[in-house]
Amino acid sequence: MSKQLFLYDTTLRDGAQYKGISFSLQDKLKITQLLDDFGMDYIEGGWPGSNPKDEAYFRHAKNLGLQHAKLVAFGATRKPLTTVEQDAQIQSLLSANTPVVALVSKFWQYHVETVLRTDLKENLSMIFDSVAFFKSHNREVVLDAEHFFDGFKDSPDYAYQCLEAAIEAGVDNVTLCDTNGGTMPSDITSIVSKVHAKFPQLSLGIHCHNDCELAVANSLASIKSGVTLIQGTVNGYGERCGNANLISLLGTLLLKPTFNQAYAVNSNVKASHLSTLSKQVADVANMPLKADAAYVGNNAFSHKGGIHVAAIAKASKTYEHIDPALVGNQRDITISELSGKSNVQLQAKKLGLDVSRNFDQVLESIKSLEKNGLTLENAPGSFEMLVRKQDESYQPHFTVLNIQSNVNDLNISSPHNSELCTATVKVRVKNKFAHVVEEASGPVDALNLALKKALTSFFPQVRDMQLTDYKVSILDPEKASAATTRVWLQSGYKQERWATIGCSDNILKASAQALIDSYQLFLIKFSDFTEGKQTTVPKHHSLNFHHEVSHNGNA
Amino acid sequence: MSKQLFLYDTTLRDGAQYKGISFSLQDKLKITQLLDDFGMDYIEGGWPGSNPKDEAYFRHAKNLGLQHAKLVAFGATRKPLTTVEQDAQIQSLLSANTPVVALVSKFWQYHVETVLRTDLKENLSMIFDSVAFFKSHNREVVLDAEHFFDGFKDSPDYAYQCLEAAIEAGVDNVTLCDTNGGTMPSDITSIVSKVHAKFPQLSLGIHCHNDCELAVANSLASIKSGVTLIQGTVNGYGERCGNANLISLLGTLLLKPTFNQAYAVNSNVKASHLSTLSKQVADVANMPLKADAAYVGNNAFSHKGGIHVAAIAKASKTYEHIDPALVGNQRDITISELSGKSNVQLQAKKLGLDVSRNFDQVLESIKSLEKNGLTLENAPGSFEMLVRKQDESYQPHFTVLNIQSNVNDLNISSPHNSELCTATVKVRVKNKFAHVVEEASGPVDALNLALKKALTSFFPQVRDMQLTDYKVSILDPEKASAATTRVWLQSGYKQERWATIGCSDNILKASAQALIDSYQLFLIKFSDFTEGKQTTVPKHHSLNFHHEVSHNGNA
Repeated sequence: MSKQLFLYDTTLRDGAQYKGISFSLQDKLKITQLLDDFGMDYIEGGWPGSNPKDEAYFRHAKNLGLQHAKLVAFGATRKPLTTVEQDAQIQSLLSANTPVVALVSKFWQYHVETVLRTDLKENLSMIFDSVAFFKSHNREVVLDAEHFFDGFKDSPDYAYQCLEAAIEAGVDNVTLCDTNGGTMPSDITSIVSKVHAKFPQLSLGIHCHNDCELAVANSLASIKSGVTLIQGTVNGYGERCGNANLISLLGTLLLKPTFNQAYAVNSNVKASHLSTLSKQVADVANMPLKADAAYVGNNAFSHKGGIHVAAIAKASKTYEHIDPALVGNQRDITISELSGKSNVQLQAKKLGLDVSRNFDQVLESIKSLEKNGLTLENAPGSFEMLVRKQDESYQPHFTVLNIQSNVNDLNISSPHNSELCTATVKVRVKNKFAHVVEEASGPVDALNLALKKALTSFFPQVRDMQLTDYKVSILDPEKASAATTRVWLQSGYKQERWATIGCSDNILKASAQALIDSYQLFLIKFSDFTEGKQTTVPKHHSLNFHHEVSHNGNA
Repeated sequence: MSKQLFLYDTTLRDGAQYKGISFSLQDKLKITQLLDDFGMDYIEGGWPGSNPKDEAYFRHAKNLGLQHAKLVAFGATRKPLTTVEQDAQIQSLLSANTPVVALVSKFWQYHVETVLRTDLKENLSMIFDSVAFFKSHNREVVLDAEHFFDGFKDSPDYAYQCLEAAIEAGVDNVTLCDTNGGTMPSDITSIVSKVHAKFPQLSLGIHCHNDCELAVANSLASIKSGVTLIQGTVNGYGERCGNANLISLLGTLLLKPTFNQAYAVNSNVKASHLSTLSKQVADVANMPLKADAAYVGNNAFSHKGGIHVAAIAKASKTYEHIDPALVGNQRDITISELSGKSNVQLQAKKLGLDVSRNFDQVLESIKSLEKNGLTLENAPGSFEMLVRKQDESYQPHFTVLNIQSNVNDLNISSPHNSELCTATVKVRVKNKFAHVVEEASGPVDALNLALKKALTSFFPQVRDMQLTDYKVSILDPEKASAATTRVWLQSGYKQERWATIGCSDNILKASAQALIDSYQLFLIKFSDFTEGKQTTVPKHHSLNFHHEVSHNGNA
């Protein structure tokens, strides 16, 4: 029989402490739905006593009709020398009206004395009273034992007294927190084992931070020592270096025999949904996804070294610890000077392109681009255009003859964008010309609108193509604002996404290069265009935009 | 007595496989110097048999005059069914003429049979012959046992036979590689312990990958089981999800009692140099530093949650597992809606600003900016300007009255930037005006040059200020090229760095906002300007740019 583990997500509470994250109420509700769809057992939604947004969240979250997860409101044990009835924070926690409450409590003498500035006995009463209060209101109570491991090392006796107070008050689970993230796996193993041996009936949880890059390892160690409730966040968001990354933890718990033969999580949770969940939450959080994230990162199954690529072609398990499809990810062979011929051939084959005739020429072009600072690794669209342009038979759908851009009277003191940018674009398609002007608040937008306007007059389906992401990086910062800028952009049509790049010391020119490649690619893929015969029905050919999967699929 | 551990850095070989990294020869030499200065025992510089850049590297690296580190050339055991003398790769490895060679070798039956496609006995000979060859040429030989753990799990017998062949040939160290990064810490412990028990005289190394977010934990587990040579990379760069992060490993080995009481590394290595090494290597690699990196990340000691900030003010060890100064890092209190008043007050105090009179107004301004998508967390310069602008007595050094920008004839088909961008800027300083025009290849550069020209006519010291970094992100990608762009830029003067932001749906306007704040700040800090009394001697006042430390200090 497998031992049942419970997944406790705190992305919306501890995850929101991650620098750079700022969830709106709508963001929090969206993520709640994603977490429930995925199959989390507990969703810690926020701290109703600390800010109005979190109070509003709990009012709205009730209407989501969660299918699986129990909603948790987070708070603290009562203040010293008062009663739970008089403690406003306790009362607003009760008003959140969730089936579960989590109470953070002090288990470390040092913290009680220097921060709370109360005596150790009063802290025990605070634990007892607070737990007992919520039990009397029929709540499931998770007690977060803050600094449990630091506290235990200083005084196991006091840590045990705190645990006993909680048990006596009827606590449902005590979660042992490595609040500062400084505990070593060996200490996690020994301390959790002692606690589990002393209180075998008590349900234990774990809450780890990543300050030593050990949060995942510490969580796994705790499971082997008796913990059954796993706190963590999607993508490891959280205070400072983050919390234990539930995505990595679940990859291991679900796919590695040491764990999946001994432990089980609820049956809604599927490893194959991990990549989607990771991307969806990153999207809502507006955080870039770490390319090197375990299991789900874009690079997690990328192969750059030439010998690796050659071996993968023979037997994938030589350089892949799992089949990428098991976590909803996919293999990605990168193009680079290190990779040698195998990579380029494999990549071209994946795109359905024949490079057998002009292979050396293609390789040369890649090397020359890379020398100039353009890396094609994250822009398969530009790689495809490069291969196509090397083909003698390649005929572009259109040629851009001229672009001009103008920004009038940039009124810095006004918060509003009263100024106007204009762009003119002249395009040739066979023997016909379009010369158009467009205006917008920003010069890149004006340029894109003008290009789109010119192209739409020939290819109406261009209207439905979207620019979905746009990034700029500078390649040689020491050149200051004269630096070479690399523009990376992602375009979209329905569920498809494709990425192209441009590079210049003029940001508009770099943008134009990437935009033009993107429009050319769109026309190659989705248009059955011959002059006079235009269709808006997309035609996929054998090609696909596998690199840029939609983030909007169902979890 | 502490057990001696040896640090083996493979940033230049396995680290170079990280997607996005492309080291030039100069980059590699720079990093070699940084690693030697830091005190690494071994520096694996590249694979001379695989590409001309790495061959050139070993020719040049000899002239660096390394003080401490031994240079390692990486290669593979000889090919099947040939001799070491006839194997070109072996010969070029010899020609690299390094004191140490590392040989990758197969320890997994499956790999030998499916990829090498040779028999198991021949593989043993390949190991023996290759090790013996380099020993006969007086090289120190590190044998990288590829897929050691996968191989051992399939057949301990064959893994032992490989080890015996290496030992018989006189190998100096066998490094056990978790090549695919899929091994669990418990398996590392049990397998390394067995190997160490069977060959107690053999020096063992470890080489872990981060595919399960366990590379650091696995490396630590191996040390506890008998390994003494630790392979890893600075910042964890490496194939796929990366290699074991030496920065995180060293933080723990040097600062955590479980390790620093039992093990020692060479005395040149200082924990306090870790932040600098991490930043310097990231700079050369042109990779953004992960803000949430353990020990050295900008966020590693940032405190966003209000209660954490309040507690830190009382007793820092409540939310810091180590003193940030121990690793050359520093505490960072972030500004955000979550943080409450304590953060804003602390941050202002750090900057030497008095917010007591208009605190609510400052807080309101921050909240209103954050609502519009501007986060001040990474732009302390903008935070400072915001606080200053709220002060009734604030007098800007200059006022920008008008900016215009023009891009003529963007010739897309030309690889060169023949086109010209112009910007005109009108600035007022007291009752004097400057109206100037500048030209450049790009519109942002033209804008910056024009601003600089206008300001230099009043404040000559502006000439020495530099724009050192420039980033653009879009806040609402669904709005396509009309999206709001956030420009973050870092300016520099001598060793100082400061960061400001701007936000607009016009990238030029966002850039102008950030530039103008940056120039204002420069003039506040480094100019003792009164009209008619200009000095180029910087005056620091009591303020400092603590957030953006120089990356160029000595390790």
